Amino acid sequence: MAKHVMTYDDAGVDINAGQEVVDRIKSHMRGTYGPRVLDRHGGFAGCFRLDYNEKLFKRNFRDPVLVSCTDSVGSKVLLASQMGVFDTIGQDVVAMNVNDLIVQGADPLFFLDYIGIHKIEPVVAEQIVRGVADGCNLADCALLGGETAELPDLYKPGEFDLAGFAVGVCELSRMIHGERAEAGDVILALASSGIHSNGYALVRAIVRDAKLHLDKKYPELDDSRSLGQVLLTPTRIYARSIVKVLRRYRVKKPVAAMSHITGGGLPGNLPRTLDSNLDARIDPKSWQVPPVFQFLQQRGNVADEEMLKVFNMGIGYVMVVRPHFADSIASQLRQAGEQVFILGQVVRGSGKVVLS
Amino acid sequence: MAKHVMTYDDAGVDINAGQEVVDRIKSHMRGTYGPRVLDRHGGFAGCFRLDYNEKLFKRNFRDPVLVSCTDSVGSKVLLASQMGVFDTIGQDVVAMNVNDLIVQGADPLFFLDYIGIHKIEPVVAEQIVRGVADGCNLADCALLGGETAELPDLYKPGEFDLAGFAVGVCELSRMIHGERAEAGDVILALASSGIHSNGYALVRAIVRDAKLHLDKKYPELDDSRSLGQVLLTPTRIYARSIVKVLRRYRVKKPVAAMSHITGGGLPGNLPRTLDSNLDARIDPKSWQVPPVFQFLQQRGNVADEEMLKVFNMGIGYVMVVRPHFADSIASQLRQAGEQVFILGQVVRGSGKVVLS
Repeated sequence: MAKHVMTYDDAGVDINAGQEVVDRIKSHMRGTYGPRVLDRHGGFAGCFRLDYNEKLFKRNFRDPVLVSCTDSVGSKVLLASQMGVFDTIGQDVVAMNVNDLIVQGADPLFFLDYIGIHKIEPVVAEQIVRGVADGCNLADCALLGGETAELPDLYKPGEFDLAGFAVGVCELSRMIHGERAEAGDVILALASSGIHSNGYALVRAIVRDAKLHLDKKYPELDDSRSLGQVLLTPTRIYARSIVKVLRRYRVKKPVAAMSHITGGGLPGNLPRTLDSNLDARIDPKSWQVPPVFQFLQQRGNVADEEMLKVFNMGIGYVMVVRPHFADSIASQLRQAGEQVFILGQVVRGSGKVVLS
Repeated sequence: MAKHVMTYDDAGVDINAGQEVVDRIKSHMRGTYGPRVLDRHGGFAGCFRLDYNEKLFKRNFRDPVLVSCTDSVGSKVLLASQMGVFDTIGQDVVAMNVNDLIVQGADPLFFLDYIGIHKIEPVVAEQIVRGVADGCNLADCALLGGETAELPDLYKPGEFDLAGFAVGVCELSRMIHGERAEAGDVILALASSGIHSNGYALVRAIVRDAKLHLDKKYPELDDSRSLGQVLLTPTRIYARSIVKVLRRYRVKKPVAAMSHITGGGLPGNLPRTLDSNLDARIDPKSWQVPPVFQFLQQRGNVADEEMLKVFNMGIGYVMVVRPHFADSIASQLRQAGEQVFILGQVVRGSGKVVLS
């Protein structure tokens, strides 16, 4: 087992290779450290100062709420293994977690990853962790620790699982929970970067049954990238854009609810943030469905409704905002680099998504 | 994928069974909640108040340091699968993490678990999470969330992996790090409950090569339990005892360093907490090696040195304390239910464990 906190133990790896991985992983981890990480030799756990009492970084909380979640990238790891591409899946696992954190209004603070693997190969381990560190940098959080467990009898040769765990903080009075949304609120959508990290069981079944080739370019899908490359596109991380908007409006609180669109799609995730006497009325023509979804639907002969339940269909994150602020928030998100769609609005109802 | 935050998604499980698991898991989780957990409907992440501003529970920090780590139970999961015993391995994963947290002087706050599994069977999933919740109760921390990922193409039928993440908090000025230990300090050991969660690759190899039977009772090992039951004994959680001692001595700080004895054994873990110009001189007759280690050594024909490097050999946790306080701390630990050995003392040296 190999810990990449400050405690990498190289049992099962040859000593030199093991030490090399540790050094490489540490440099990727340190690249994510801000001044709030206490980087002490010989620690058994990562240490992160909640307040940092220097003028520049001071950020105190009256009543801090720690917000935490865990998620894995699901069977997208199998696609990564199959293609031998290991340096992007780390961004996926960070994204799956920090995009959940920010829904509650939290600022991401730090992240830890867990890799279960058949055999620790230094190059592969470093690429996975480098991807995680890249994701942490995109989310402005520290990669505070991790564990790589070599389990040759549990995982098949060349295969691994990847899970992660994120912690953020939010002032109690500024937490976001769905009870705030009301009829008339505007629903904004942030474009996804692709399939993100849900629905890969179906993706892999379609690839197999339709005899598609991961290393082939399909012109109707993408001129420059192979199918496999398109399918491995890392999950977009919305943390920086969302944290920026929430900070801007600390007093007015125009953001009523948010939702990270994961397994279950728009109909499965958007209602979670709304009271049960509200519906989300969405214009199905209000956003562009990226080519990858149309491609998979055609090749797999999948029903529209099923597609919407399994995949994000181009919408990775949803904000429910007060109507007066909708244009201004949309414009700020665009300035922050997001592609934004105005999907529809919240109406009285019974807790569903209504496409009309 | 199935989240057991408040966000269990039952894709891949039949709906009724899925909902049943969610309900059962939630009740186990709620059993670990104190008043600091915000249990809100529809959240995407678990929420935990760092301060709780009611008189009884107020516990504020001048400069709080969040301490966090991740670990898995390694190949002990394979033994649990093989034996079909799923309700104790959860304590192991909590122990592996919280015993690391407390080394830095932190109080455990909350825990999250990750289960990757071939197929979510409600009874098995509930038993695993119940074990995790039991462990959280023993460590006085909340089971704030979790994720169960059904990955039939990654895990074999009947098999699963189990990892966890723990977060604790420590006042900056009260953090414990090894630089404090000095020559003359006394080394106290807390007995382990057995093999804990390290060395199971070797355990399984011995069982296989010596043709041992997991369901058989070996009188020289244990009269009342089968070999498999002995091997699955859950890892002892030291959190409550250690937190109690540290609270008692907030001002005097007689605890100079601590170590959780995991992979690498005593020689691999104890020096991590000491300066490189110190040795830990230990009397090899100062503690009792439990029968399970002698049994495995004999059946597997393993060298003494190898045993000491792979297994805890009966010592799960080590405290390095100022000599004046050693007896009093040992007696408090015994009152808290620990079996304590006085192993030896810290002497000038070069960062090793010396058995003499």
